[in-house]
Amino acid sequence: MIDINREIAALDWQREPLGLYEPIGYTLAAGGKRLRPTLALTASRIFGGNEQEVIPAALALEVFHNFTLLHDDVMDKAQVRRGRPCVHIKWDENTAILSGDQMLIEAYKLLAQLPADRLPEVLRLFNTMATEICEGQQRDVDLAQAASAEIADYMLMIRQKTAVLLATALQIGAYMAGADKAAQQALYEYGIRVGLAFQLQDDYLDCFGDERTFGKAIGGDIREGKKTWMWLQARAKGMPDTQGNVERTLAEYRRLGIDTMAHAEIQRLTDEAQTYLESLPRNEATDTLRRMAEQLVTRMN
Amino acid sequence: MIDINREIAALDWQREPLGLYEPIGYTLAAGGKRLRPTLALTASRIFGGNEQEVIPAALALEVFHNFTLLHDDVMDKAQVRRGRPCVHIKWDENTAILSGDQMLIEAYKLLAQLPADRLPEVLRLFNTMATEICEGQQRDVDLAQAASAEIADYMLMIRQKTAVLLATALQIGAYMAGADKAAQQALYEYGIRVGLAFQLQDDYLDCFGDERTFGKAIGGDIREGKKTWMWLQARAKGMPDTQGNVERTLAEYRRLGIDTMAHAEIQRLTDEAQTYLESLPRNEATDTLRRMAEQLVTRMN
Repeated sequence: MIDINREIAALDWQREPLGLYEPIGYTLAAGGKRLRPTLALTASRIFGGNEQEVIPAALALEVFHNFTLLHDDVMDKAQVRRGRPCVHIKWDENTAILSGDQMLIEAYKLLAQLPADRLPEVLRLFNTMATEICEGQQRDVDLAQAASAEIADYMLMIRQKTAVLLATALQIGAYMAGADKAAQQALYEYGIRVGLAFQLQDDYLDCFGDERTFGKAIGGDIREGKKTWMWLQARAKGMPDTQGNVERTLAEYRRLGIDTMAHAEIQRLTDEAQTYLESLPRNEATDTLRRMAEQLVTRMN
Repeated sequence: MIDINREIAALDWQREPLGLYEPIGYTLAAGGKRLRPTLALTASRIFGGNEQEVIPAALALEVFHNFTLLHDDVMDKAQVRRGRPCVHIKWDENTAILSGDQMLIEAYKLLAQLPADRLPEVLRLFNTMATEICEGQQRDVDLAQAASAEIADYMLMIRQKTAVLLATALQIGAYMAGADKAAQQALYEYGIRVGLAFQLQDDYLDCFGDERTFGKAIGGDIREGKKTWMWLQARAKGMPDTQGNVERTLAEYRRLGIDTMAHAEIQRLTDEAQTYLESLPRNEATDTLRRMAEQLVTRMN
């Protein structure tokens, strides 16, 4: 099996001008779950694909994901990413913008290494995904500024901003392995639901997680006044304006049963995700995806 | 002949979310010389290529160029572009970053429209060019911060930041029309020299142009302490530190004959550019490129 961390470490960023490439190496060396390349490789294994052939696309997905984090951190004025200062803190904003741009280009350079007969379709899938990510980021901004919002607005935002990248990673892996359209689509739909459930679980843990295992202070979303699924549901059920007070908001969530509702919604999405795996070959790789969805519902961080 | 402005105007940016796409439409509607798509189409015509087939690549080059302007303006804290407020002034910095990212993705979406058999090579040429642009931008930053610099550092910077995009536009046009490697390379080399001459002429006009025709105040580069070709040549010839004083610096340039040297260098580069056209078919399109190089040396704005 491919060791994706070794593949990422093998990318060479000791290039001139150092001011452009060092921040890229710094970002990619910070670790992370490597979830997206892992999904692409796992999807390929389901269909007995040649994992080696998928590597450029898997790496492109990881480099692209890290590009989005780099620019998002500038836009959010974040300080820390994966326990280390963000690029725009360690260097400066201009460096984060320019090295981020280069990371996006590097993702496309990796895609250009794919076999010529596979390139057009993978490029098309990748471009569609990249577009949705930018749209999702803009919808996130719009949502923060909107006076009111519907649950559907929030779901579309997290679908584009988070779920589509997981779904596309799976689809690209499946396509590279020669899976037919229906199988590609099944994995895409699995990825969307896992992505949505993943984000809702994040929102849930931000409210009801254990600070020791969650790794950050509880109630951050509430303090920032974020229009999360939980907040929108509570408002729809008549929660008064709690003005970012964490204690009061959490009490309201409990009183209105939002915690139970969120848990049920995450379970529902996870179950739905699993059904999409049923049409696929049963093997070690499909089992990995099945377990991944299960772990999602029970994860505490 | 293709009307490139009509093609650009036909791109649809009335898409949701508006906050992402409106700044892209605003940027592309601001005009400009459309030099890069024009070069790609002209190069294709030299070899009797199907211009219609080149359009996606020509548009990708223009969208990419405007992406670089958008992000450069953020990094330079510029106020005005083509007589209108920059995107980060009219909207905000985050909008300029995100809409810029989307423009870069849109450039790749346009490339993805190319015939599948042409895509791999054009993507490779495009990626190489895009990388050099980012490297050139970083070298520009490094040059500003460096205590000293050589002429060669400056030439490499403007080669990457300005000339490579013109050269690649020509090469892509030639490749699409089926030109052989030698002809592609000749056009690339022509483009590099025209690009270098273009930038040096810009530097020259910034010192010795006529404010009425040049369109901006004379001496901007000197006031900003930019290490231009002229400044580096003057320093190499023993010019004292003039501390950004425009009058004194221009007097030194004249005393040392830098104005004459610059003019001669621009002429030399332009002549060199013309020699690369000699191996190509003689027709209306080659004549256009020949005239373009001539106009460069005499242009006053």
